[in-house]
Amino acid sequence: MRDLLPTETAIRDWATQVILQTYEQFGFTRIETPALEHLHLLKSGEGGENLQLIFEVMKRGDKLDKALAKQPLDRSDLADLGLRFDLTVPLVRYFCNNQNELMYPLKAIQIGSVWRAESPQQGRFRQFTQCDIDVLGIKSEIVEMELLTASSRAMLALGFENFSIRINDRRLLSALVDASGLGANPESVFIAIDKLDKIGMEGVKNELLKAGRDRDAVDQLVSTLADLAPDKDLAAQEKSLEKYRSLIESNESLSTSLKEPALGAIQPLLNVIRSVSESSKSLFDIVFDPTLVRGMGYYTGQIFEISVPGYSYSMGGGGRYDRMVGKFSGRDVPACGYSIGFERVIGALMDKGFTIPQEREKLALIYEDRDSPDQVMEASNRLREQGFTVATQPKKKDMKKQLDSLVALNFSKFVSFRGDPNILEIKELKK
Amino acid sequence: MRDLLPTETAIRDWATQVILQTYEQFGFTRIETPALEHLHLLKSGEGGENLQLIFEVMKRGDKLDKALAKQPLDRSDLADLGLRFDLTVPLVRYFCNNQNELMYPLKAIQIGSVWRAESPQQGRFRQFTQCDIDVLGIKSEIVEMELLTASSRAMLALGFENFSIRINDRRLLSALVDASGLGANPESVFIAIDKLDKIGMEGVKNELLKAGRDRDAVDQLVSTLADLAPDKDLAAQEKSLEKYRSLIESNESLSTSLKEPALGAIQPLLNVIRSVSESSKSLFDIVFDPTLVRGMGYYTGQIFEISVPGYSYSMGGGGRYDRMVGKFSGRDVPACGYSIGFERVIGALMDKGFTIPQEREKLALIYEDRDSPDQVMEASNRLREQGFTVATQPKKKDMKKQLDSLVALNFSKFVSFRGDPNILEIKELKK
Repeated sequence: MRDLLPTETAIRDWATQVILQTYEQFGFTRIETPALEHLHLLKSGEGGENLQLIFEVMKRGDKLDKALAKQPLDRSDLADLGLRFDLTVPLVRYFCNNQNELMYPLKAIQIGSVWRAESPQQGRFRQFTQCDIDVLGIKSEIVEMELLTASSRAMLALGFENFSIRINDRRLLSALVDASGLGANPESVFIAIDKLDKIGMEGVKNELLKAGRDRDAVDQLVSTLADLAPDKDLAAQEKSLEKYRSLIESNESLSTSLKEPALGAIQPLLNVIRSVSESSKSLFDIVFDPTLVRGMGYYTGQIFEISVPGYSYSMGGGGRYDRMVGKFSGRDVPACGYSIGFERVIGALMDKGFTIPQEREKLALIYEDRDSPDQVMEASNRLREQGFTVATQPKKKDMKKQLDSLVALNFSKFVSFRGDPNILEIKELKK
Repeated sequence: MRDLLPTETAIRDWATQVILQTYEQFGFTRIETPALEHLHLLKSGEGGENLQLIFEVMKRGDKLDKALAKQPLDRSDLADLGLRFDLTVPLVRYFCNNQNELMYPLKAIQIGSVWRAESPQQGRFRQFTQCDIDVLGIKSEIVEMELLTASSRAMLALGFENFSIRINDRRLLSALVDASGLGANPESVFIAIDKLDKIGMEGVKNELLKAGRDRDAVDQLVSTLADLAPDKDLAAQEKSLEKYRSLIESNESLSTSLKEPALGAIQPLLNVIRSVSESSKSLFDIVFDPTLVRGMGYYTGQIFEISVPGYSYSMGGGGRYDRMVGKFSGRDVPACGYSIGFERVIGALMDKGFTIPQEREKLALIYEDRDSPDQVMEASNRLREQGFTVATQPKKKDMKKQLDSLVALNFSKFVSFRGDPNILEIKELKK
């Protein structure tokens, strides 16, 4: 956990507003859930490894006394609340609890802190911001189109260009793994492919072979994945997905429970690629990537990630998770979400020395101890009415250093107060 | 703790932006501290009753094992972190930790959640938002002028009018209590006067008499307070403060350690009243109130509160606390802050049915299952380019109900999609 200094906070606030305003234009509305949830809810969800990283809040008062008095002590009984580790589990709980008061379908924006008890040496923060949009209640791929159009608009508005959206569908991936003869324990194959970015295709192959997978099957999977990977050209992507279709159709060992969903996934995937590509005006790409997996086990359909040139990690991602609400409430509700990698986006903006466009020029009004506070305040009010952001500051001994630090904070003007609010000489600050 | 629905979240976001933009014009910059602080820090501070209300976070891993293995069990050793209960203790810690990287004096805005383990039946939230500005490093009353000018501007921008700022100085109050012969345990007298709003002057009197205070002294205090209370007229306030001055000057039993600070407090108080009154343009009042106490023990100088007509509780308050930083770091730093009662302000806006001014008109694009998603998306993109906020929605069986719920969410237009993005008939939604 860390303190945020003024410069970074200003960039975070600016980025939050840009993202929020973009998403709002697509009819999304922000909601908020509390930071603390019941521990049993957090632990019942599909948090994967995050379940090990929950900050647990101790019971209070009588309840704590009771829990501590038990013999033998039951350590799992000492805490009743936990800090949320993501915004998806709380969203599903929120949707189920507030259904009567919410628009259905729900188009929600969430921007908020989450907490994970990572060991500090990992270089990860233990409190960080997530920034999600989710649509609950719509099956059609119009949702995927909207999520990707809105998120890419947000990225453009944040000043990123030439980024790539990679897109795939879990149902295609499942069919492919099975068709290659690796259908037993497919999750472990997904996990291996998911490491492609880090360990390369040879690494994936080795991992599967080490796990005792059949060499022929592994070879076939790897060569098919290579064969299906198209370039950015839209026609090439259409051709590749047609190839995928015949590969699945012609495979006779594939069970219908995998074959039909996979065949049904192709047209919507093509639709999304075409629609987003159309709206991109060549400022960014959308590319079908047969190797895209994304870690979380809960995805059921299309999955996507945004990559920015120069960064090895993705700047956001998401996908469809049609069965998560059902696990909470007993009734499935179609759901799909996209999460901007907020901390990474801020990091990238800081890397490139981003400065926020200022609506008002920043002016420092420098006064001395002998000046009358009323008069300084009057001068400050007048300058503010002229349209400046005005920061009053007592004069420091080292005035040059004082002015330099103002430049660093994007001040462009200063006034040395001379005892009279009627005489204010506005001077430029030199960069 | 509670979920925030879209309508309230939108109002909160709007209010946050209004406040933030107003404060920024006065040269304040936002900072952020983590939600979790070390428990020993939270407990060492001046949190008063709030220390009983800290949510404590359990230790993790080895540290928890060790703490649980101890015999006898030390319950105070089980937790190491706590959720912040206010923004002032974290601010002081932040200031001390980051001094080398911060502008001095520091003019900080903080807007963030705080947590208190109130019993739920109290009608108070266990997570709520605080919204503070603080200046660390300036002794002059220019700070009080700026805090009050900026906060009252923020209240005006939020749509409040005819509110009153009540102002007093702790040093005057201390001298007055002592001068009345109630100088032993003055804190308990402050606590009694602080209840004036709720129990009236007779109630205050009874409380002091019940506590065994001398009847003559109590009578004198009460009659002096009544005598000093001026009306809103500036000249009356000046007269009243002159009366206060002679009262203190002429009291020979008053120790110099109380007399001198009190006499030194009068001119700055007058300056602040005059300056803020000048800038108010008669849209609000600033009134010297000799009975204003404010609860926290850490105040050392001027204190103030904003009251809005129609509400019995204050909508914000603050004051000078010149000795708190010194308690953390060993070196006193002058400090003064103002806190908008964010939850109360939002409550008041909701009470009066406030709706947010919309920059873009909100339009719903209603489609049917048979419509092609690409075409709906294309239509939606076109309408957005025309300047609308566009929410796509599947058509519901009860279309009248659907349109009514759009009106409730401030939509002003809708389009029923007819299968062709080139033919979009925009219709008005009737209120």
